[in-house]
Amino acid sequence: MKTISVLGSTGSIGTQTLEVAEHLGNVKIAGLSTNRNIKLLEEQIRRFKPEIAAVADEKAALDLKVSVADTNTKVVSGVDGLCQVSTHKKAGSVVTSIVGIAGLIPTNAAIDEGKDILLANKETLVTAGDIIMKKAEEKGASIIPVDSEHSAIFQCMQGGGAVDRIILTASGGSFFGRKKHELENVTVDEALAHPNWSMGKKITIDSATLMNKGLEVIEAHHLFGIDYDNIEVVIHRESIIHSMVEFTDGSILAQLGYPDMRLPIHYAICYPERVSSIVERMDFKKLSKLSFAQPDVDTFRLLSLAVWAGVHGGTMPTVLNAANEAAVELFLEGKIKFLEIAEIVEKHLQKHKKIINPSLSEIIDLDRQIKEEILR
Amino acid sequence: MKTISVLGSTGSIGTQTLEVAEHLGNVKIAGLSTNRNIKLLEEQIRRFKPEIAAVADEKAALDLKVSVADTNTKVVSGVDGLCQVSTHKKAGSVVTSIVGIAGLIPTNAAIDEGKDILLANKETLVTAGDIIMKKAEEKGASIIPVDSEHSAIFQCMQGGGAVDRIILTASGGSFFGRKKHELENVTVDEALAHPNWSMGKKITIDSATLMNKGLEVIEAHHLFGIDYDNIEVVIHRESIIHSMVEFTDGSILAQLGYPDMRLPIHYAICYPERVSSIVERMDFKKLSKLSFAQPDVDTFRLLSLAVWAGVHGGTMPTVLNAANEAAVELFLEGKIKFLEIAEIVEKHLQKHKKIINPSLSEIIDLDRQIKEEILR
Repeated sequence: MKTISVLGSTGSIGTQTLEVAEHLGNVKIAGLSTNRNIKLLEEQIRRFKPEIAAVADEKAALDLKVSVADTNTKVVSGVDGLCQVSTHKKAGSVVTSIVGIAGLIPTNAAIDEGKDILLANKETLVTAGDIIMKKAEEKGASIIPVDSEHSAIFQCMQGGGAVDRIILTASGGSFFGRKKHELENVTVDEALAHPNWSMGKKITIDSATLMNKGLEVIEAHHLFGIDYDNIEVVIHRESIIHSMVEFTDGSILAQLGYPDMRLPIHYAICYPERVSSIVERMDFKKLSKLSFAQPDVDTFRLLSLAVWAGVHGGTMPTVLNAANEAAVELFLEGKIKFLEIAEIVEKHLQKHKKIINPSLSEIIDLDRQIKEEILR
Repeated sequence: MKTISVLGSTGSIGTQTLEVAEHLGNVKIAGLSTNRNIKLLEEQIRRFKPEIAAVADEKAALDLKVSVADTNTKVVSGVDGLCQVSTHKKAGSVVTSIVGIAGLIPTNAAIDEGKDILLANKETLVTAGDIIMKKAEEKGASIIPVDSEHSAIFQCMQGGGAVDRIILTASGGSFFGRKKHELENVTVDEALAHPNWSMGKKITIDSATLMNKGLEVIEAHHLFGIDYDNIEVVIHRESIIHSMVEFTDGSILAQLGYPDMRLPIHYAICYPERVSSIVERMDFKKLSKLSFAQPDVDTFRLLSLAVWAGVHGGTMPTVLNAANEAAVELFLEGKIKFLEIAEIVEKHLQKHKKIINPSLSEIIDLDRQIKEEILR
């Protein structure tokens, strides 16, 4: 029997995590959290009977407290509440499916308590990879990736062996093959039409700009300790090969499966064991080809900008991520054009004076500052 | 420093094994053997300075004895000589790159001495899989596959986890896509024109008939303890994915690389470590697609016949293999047509009275008997 807390349990990854946990049958839920979706959280509380549930929004937390007063679940709120969920003594591991920099503090708190992290929050490693990986090692906390690409790499590396290169596959998103002039007037709906994956809006836009892949490169660098020079991005439209690892002997291992986040979630929860899952089996009678192409980094500049920020390190990835998050918000609100996302990110990277070894609070302050500047 | 003996050192796998050993630099050669290519064996003796060298052909052995009289290598002959090479006390492991049933006795002898087997001889497991795998377990001898497909599966399984399915990839050989009436008058040269792999003649014909894949299914069954129902053959024309493993959670791992036998040889020699190799690195800028198709088992009947023989077990795979070997010999000599290979094999399977648990000598006698019957 494993007991987990799920940060961001009302989001896409969070709900799928609970679905997987329910299927497995031997997974208990210690804690849940939401930003403000208390309707769904209430349903989850009644179904999974967690010890504790956190609502980031203080006002919504008060409402939830009333509505679940008849249950045994303790309702807490704010960042402190999230940390209570992530560090709950009954939770052996924490699924960090919370979106945004909000995941950083509760993830860090969980690692402080030596809990294993089933990592689905990109910002944790993108903005604070150096701090987090070092602390995880010190505290003996495992970081098990939930992202499909990093899960693929992690699975390929389980047999051991020195790694020479990581090949991160990318679907190419909604606008693969288009040139810059064809992207000038694309709409939000067009950008949200991802060919393979059904995901949240922010990540779908990041997929269309290739920023998502850039963030994954930075994550992979921290997670697997691989130099940026040895991380390659390859476009793979079918999203069947979720990523690959080349070992020092030149042999490549790849992990394959239909695009279904429940598999990497299931793998992370069951790790290091493999247990029967609910995902659909690959039908080779229906699989005729897997295609590959090179990313067009002139058109989709955010991929290069992300790698640039990763290589320069310090607070650069924080600026990259914050500027992107704010710019994507503006794009989704119809306030800027698609290509302006990259322009905004680049402008902020250019003018930023890097802090080499930022603290967590410096990272969080900088994130807020950049976003305020862009969104005001 | 590892010390190996190489059975069949003058063949395709044997010479590549020595090339890999030389590159590695820390591999000593205890023994070598050839059927009758004493010219090349002499060169190898002078270069690798083995303790012992065996020539299967007694007459050729006498000639070699004279020509390498100035070296410290002991020359031996016949089956007994092959066993002296495979069991040489300095050899920690034995590469069984000898072709045909001739590999069975020296491989068995090596396992008796607890030596690890780097298995490149198909007949060992096809004809005597039950005996050999049981004995290897008893003696604590590892069987490490050298065949590219089985090496791929072996690599994918290194991370552990229960296996649900093995997906053996097949290039489809020289005649992929053709129907039966288009195969009636194909020539030996056409059959020998393999799209990806440069191999010996026998195996290239087996690749064209899909018998090679059938033999590999039987090998995989024994090597990995997987039911025939859970071994699937998929045509993959590019020979880049060398095989795949599906785990119980539905996740698939695949091993990729250019078609180059030096990689699985290198892997087997270095196992369980991964060490820098001489193989060409995959260039994803040049890889545009990987394609898949279903094998046409109506046209290429030897694949079904092989699986049938495997499922029925006992001496059936020995009959399959012996009849095929003889029939391929007749085809290569221009004495029968391409489609007659399958007809001959089927006829002999049909009339054979199966021995359920044959001994090694029964297997070897039966092999000789079937071949004599076909070749006389």
